[in-house]
Amino acid sequence: MKEISGGVCAPKGFMAGGIRCGIKASSQKKDLALIYSEKSCNAAAMFTTNKVKAGCIQVSQKNVKDGKLRAIIANSGNANACTGQAGLDAALRMAQLSADALGISAEDTAVASTGVIGVPLPIDVIEKNIGALKASLRGDETGHSDALEAIMTTDTRKKEIAVEIEIDGKSVRIGAMAKGSGMIHPNMATMLAFITTDAAIAPSSLDSCLRQSVKRSFNRLTVDGDTSTNDMIVIMANGEAGNQSITTNSESFQIFRSALEFVCVRLTRMMARDGEGATKLVTVTVNGAQSEDTAESLAKSVASSSLVKAACFGADANWGRVLCAMGYAGAEFDPEKTAVVFKSRAGEIEVCKDGQTVQFSEEKAKLILSEEEIEICINIRDGEGFASVWGCDLTYDYVKINGDYRS
Amino acid sequence: MKEISGGVCAPKGFMAGGIRCGIKASSQKKDLALIYSEKSCNAAAMFTTNKVKAGCIQVSQKNVKDGKLRAIIANSGNANACTGQAGLDAALRMAQLSADALGISAEDTAVASTGVIGVPLPIDVIEKNIGALKASLRGDETGHSDALEAIMTTDTRKKEIAVEIEIDGKSVRIGAMAKGSGMIHPNMATMLAFITTDAAIAPSSLDSCLRQSVKRSFNRLTVDGDTSTNDMIVIMANGEAGNQSITTNSESFQIFRSALEFVCVRLTRMMARDGEGATKLVTVTVNGAQSEDTAESLAKSVASSSLVKAACFGADANWGRVLCAMGYAGAEFDPEKTAVVFKSRAGEIEVCKDGQTVQFSEEKAKLILSEEEIEICINIRDGEGFASVWGCDLTYDYVKINGDYRS
Repeated sequence: MKEISGGVCAPKGFMAGGIRCGIKASSQKKDLALIYSEKSCNAAAMFTTNKVKAGCIQVSQKNVKDGKLRAIIANSGNANACTGQAGLDAALRMAQLSADALGISAEDTAVASTGVIGVPLPIDVIEKNIGALKASLRGDETGHSDALEAIMTTDTRKKEIAVEIEIDGKSVRIGAMAKGSGMIHPNMATMLAFITTDAAIAPSSLDSCLRQSVKRSFNRLTVDGDTSTNDMIVIMANGEAGNQSITTNSESFQIFRSALEFVCVRLTRMMARDGEGATKLVTVTVNGAQSEDTAESLAKSVASSSLVKAACFGADANWGRVLCAMGYAGAEFDPEKTAVVFKSRAGEIEVCKDGQTVQFSEEKAKLILSEEEIEICINIRDGEGFASVWGCDLTYDYVKINGDYRS
Repeated sequence: MKEISGGVCAPKGFMAGGIRCGIKASSQKKDLALIYSEKSCNAAAMFTTNKVKAGCIQVSQKNVKDGKLRAIIANSGNANACTGQAGLDAALRMAQLSADALGISAEDTAVASTGVIGVPLPIDVIEKNIGALKASLRGDETGHSDALEAIMTTDTRKKEIAVEIEIDGKSVRIGAMAKGSGMIHPNMATMLAFITTDAAIAPSSLDSCLRQSVKRSFNRLTVDGDTSTNDMIVIMANGEAGNQSITTNSESFQIFRSALEFVCVRLTRMMARDGEGATKLVTVTVNGAQSEDTAESLAKSVASSSLVKAACFGADANWGRVLCAMGYAGAEFDPEKTAVVFKSRAGEIEVCKDGQTVQFSEEKAKLILSEEEIEICINIRDGEGFASVWGCDLTYDYVKINGDYRS
């Protein structure tokens, strides 16, 4: 597997584009994106588990049900959530408008929205600009970059990646983009991820592949504990690579799945690093658990703790908060068998052994925790299960960004 | 029922005191407290649910098991948690030292600690100062005030209250003090509350009274989602009021229980208002739920949301975040029947009806949300259940306080 450039346009037969249509009324930023496959695609998708679902979620859920999609239209600046029947109508209209412009069926179109909740979506400005949106489609560098810009909200960095693998002697590509920096928590919150691939793969295999990859990536991401109304991850596979169609649990399935997991984990890490106000990517890894699920529960509890996150911001080796957060995770472990090590590019240091403090250099710990990417490694000596969860520190800027987001 | 002064010393037969013994090495603040009843008491207590329990929790759990206590010794500046066998030994020693000084049994002594985790408790400075601690006992204004000061950590306000009620024509008093400002979450986190009463009440009735009151007060408090290793709430009843002993579910039980609940709710509100870095007390009330439990789950999810808390700090009427937080609470409600009203001394304003936005004055909303005590009132029109949960806003100072707590 090698990393390549091109994002969602890297796989054969995909185009993307993005424009400013005026949904973000007060800024000059792009706010409307389109991703399009020249041929019909098999598709799979996952959606928010929030009981409050935006109109676009309902529309996309319905449209992906037959395992087929050909386009994704997405806007930023307005979540079109808590907007009732008018909101649902607007989401349906978005699908229809882009389908008409592309000459495809509205049922082959996914719709995504992100931004402020409870404000009617100005569907008229989308309608007025749908021609310009189609005209912005490119299969080159500008295409995926424009589309990506157009789905960003409080994101400060572009999040995209593409990889190439070999299946049946054919070169197969996967490209992806994502947005998301606040309101992110396990089970995906205002997180949009769009993935394209030219692999030939059956819808059911694609679906199983996506679920397995998301379990070990996006669902192990936590920024602030809030789960949004609009999360969506969509993958479209157009088969243009010419490989023999991938079937579940075959050897090529494993190759494709591990490449997709790599792509998802990379996007997850990018989102954690770009968490609202974050100055650090914090990886929490639990080893030695009875099961992967136990390891995941403990790691999530630590990565979600406001006190641990604030300590990471302050580069304070406050390992007591780590044990405390494990203690209320509701998962099995023996505090008296627990060890905690802080790691980063600057080195590593053991701060807790058998559940108690060990003598360590506060100075060295501070140095390690002052890096931009830090890892909290926990070993509970109870089995073979392990899991990593990604999060970030809690900073002044998180409060600033969210204290008055709407204005 | 009337409010009176005197805190834990208001009920007959109780004394309290507090001194500086040097556990808080770098400050001149008091750090060791004692509460003492001249006569034997019936007692009940509740403890942290964290799997990681400080030594004092284990000692106090054992000592209260027979429903009898006569003294509480508590220190601040060191949680004596994650300190292994030495920590447990230190907690046992604290009980023994105070019991010896008071001439009572160590088994009638509760022990509490709060402060930094994972640092050995300097039991020698407690031993050296145990005589001075006993000598500080007073039944007057200085007694309860000194004891209260000695259990404070990042608290910025004193939290105490006393009330007087009449039972069987006798005047019965309840006095209480509490500490807690960070690491607070439903099910009590670094929260200590000590309650005294001169009521005559059987241990089992006292226990049931305490559990019912805590359910509707301390367990509905959330500051930052962390549950500590050291939470403890203890009530001692010495019977000095001379009332007929209160039995469960009698009329006098109801009078006593509602007074105790009042005391607990008042302390809860004081703690929420004094949440680390908080500028506002935020009450979230859900009405119209199928059950009290459903109302509580929904209200807790809203009060715990970092995004809602940050919006409260910014006085931003971002009701979409309220609905979003309800949506991931895992409790039953219909978003399309939901109404949200913001209230404070400055007035009230409906911002959401039938799950959608209503036209409202942003200016008026800002004014209402700029008050020091605000309420988010939610009605889900699905039944008669209701519950209030108390929390606070998320501010720059929370991050500052917790970014480098240990230094």
